[in-house]
Amino acid sequence: MESCNETLDLICRKFEVYQASKGYRFGLESVLLAWFVQKGAETVVDLGCGSGIISLLMVGFDRAVHAIGIEIQSTLAERARRSVAHNGLSDRIDILNADLKQLHEVLPAGAFEQVVSNPPYRPVNSGNINQDVEKALGKHEILCALSDVVASAARLLRPRGRFSVVIPPHRLPEYFHACRQNRLNPSRLRMIHGRKELGAKNCLVESIRSGKGAMHIDPPMIVYDNTGCYSKEVKAILYP
Amino acid sequence: MESCNETLDLICRKFEVYQASKGYRFGLESVLLAWFVQKGAETVVDLGCGSGIISLLMVGFDRAVHAIGIEIQSTLAERARRSVAHNGLSDRIDILNADLKQLHEVLPAGAFEQVVSNPPYRPVNSGNINQDVEKALGKHEILCALSDVVASAARLLRPRGRFSVVIPPHRLPEYFHACRQNRLNPSRLRMIHGRKELGAKNCLVESIRSGKGAMHIDPPMIVYDNTGCYSKEVKAILYP
Repeated sequence: MESCNETLDLICRKFEVYQASKGYRFGLESVLLAWFVQKGAETVVDLGCGSGIISLLMVGFDRAVHAIGIEIQSTLAERARRSVAHNGLSDRIDILNADLKQLHEVLPAGAFEQVVSNPPYRPVNSGNINQDVEKALGKHEILCALSDVVASAARLLRPRGRFSVVIPPHRLPEYFHACRQNRLNPSRLRMIHGRKELGAKNCLVESIRSGKGAMHIDPPMIVYDNTGCYSKEVKAILYP
Repeated sequence: MESCNETLDLICRKFEVYQASKGYRFGLESVLLAWFVQKGAETVVDLGCGSGIISLLMVGFDRAVHAIGIEIQSTLAERARRSVAHNGLSDRIDILNADLKQLHEVLPAGAFEQVVSNPPYRPVNSGNINQDVEKALGKHEILCALSDVVASAARLLRPRGRFSVVIPPHRLPEYFHACRQNRLNPSRLRMIHGRKELGAKNCLVESIRSGKGAMHIDPPMIVYDNTGCYSKEVKAILYP
């Protein structure tokens, strides 16, 4: 049931997701991240899962068998759980209301082959903190820093396990540094450009725990074509 | 005069550059680097200048007033000097036969606003070392590692001075790490893709000494269009 402060949004013509009308709402980058992640993992852990959108898409489109979404905000976790149930996926997706910095008693170390995250992307000292608490916590690093997210992922991953994130370009050097400190080896990088003539708005990055291979840079992902419509690639994801 | 072991190659419809027929020959990435570098520097230092192509293009197209090319291989340095003279630019370009790791007695620290480099890109333990010594030294890190090039650039730059390089994608994490260790802040990144559907072959990166701003990712540079011809952007550089 949809409360008056919530919307129920159809995504990829298949799932409906509850979101606060005015709170944190997922963006296209979360959807693109779900498709960037290598298919076939038994269990995916989603650090800071918000509405649960990434877990829903990965499991719902059979890109992973199970998902565990970690969300520190209880209102968001509760709402994500309702979305999971609404789409009939409660047996394959668990939403845990927990702090990703404190998973020691919640999830075992070195046990997972895939961790994903669309982490809060703004340092606390940058930009106005949103008046809406849910939005603020989702966008600013109030409850966790990028380095916390990377350290948490590294702890959860088994050797050769993969960590996939979406981050804005300006955090790429910091992300690489955090990877180095946590024995994660960047293996694949893909830039997301609104249009092909514009700078990148986001970067998709995959890193491998204790990996040794060389990093590959994928073709650029262009969101809109010259006519202002979604590109073929993005259309195929959003309207399968 | 062209010896039988050398070719004299026209570049950008304006300059002729001597190159060994079978030795190290410059690639398109050096030309693209010259255009990536911010215009207007008084003096550009080119670390490992090879044929001198980057210095020639930057000065010849008035993107910088002077250039100093550093080249450890005496045959290459001598040839670069001849190319500079051949193009009438000896008063604006100096080619120094020196080791970029040992510039302390050659060039002052903290004095330059722009350093560029197309460094040897292969670790010594990767791939077959070329039988041709000139090629081998130009492509493999036999005489200097990427970290040496970054440290040398950082030493030469004045605060807020810029270091611009072209490196293959797999060295990006290592390059960022070297920057961090040398107080260089990556400020601009541009990927070079052969075709828009392909992974990147090279990355252009600009870093600022003691810089504080956020890194920006430029639009992708696509070398060939769908018909297999040079893209508009590359054509405008190669055939101005």
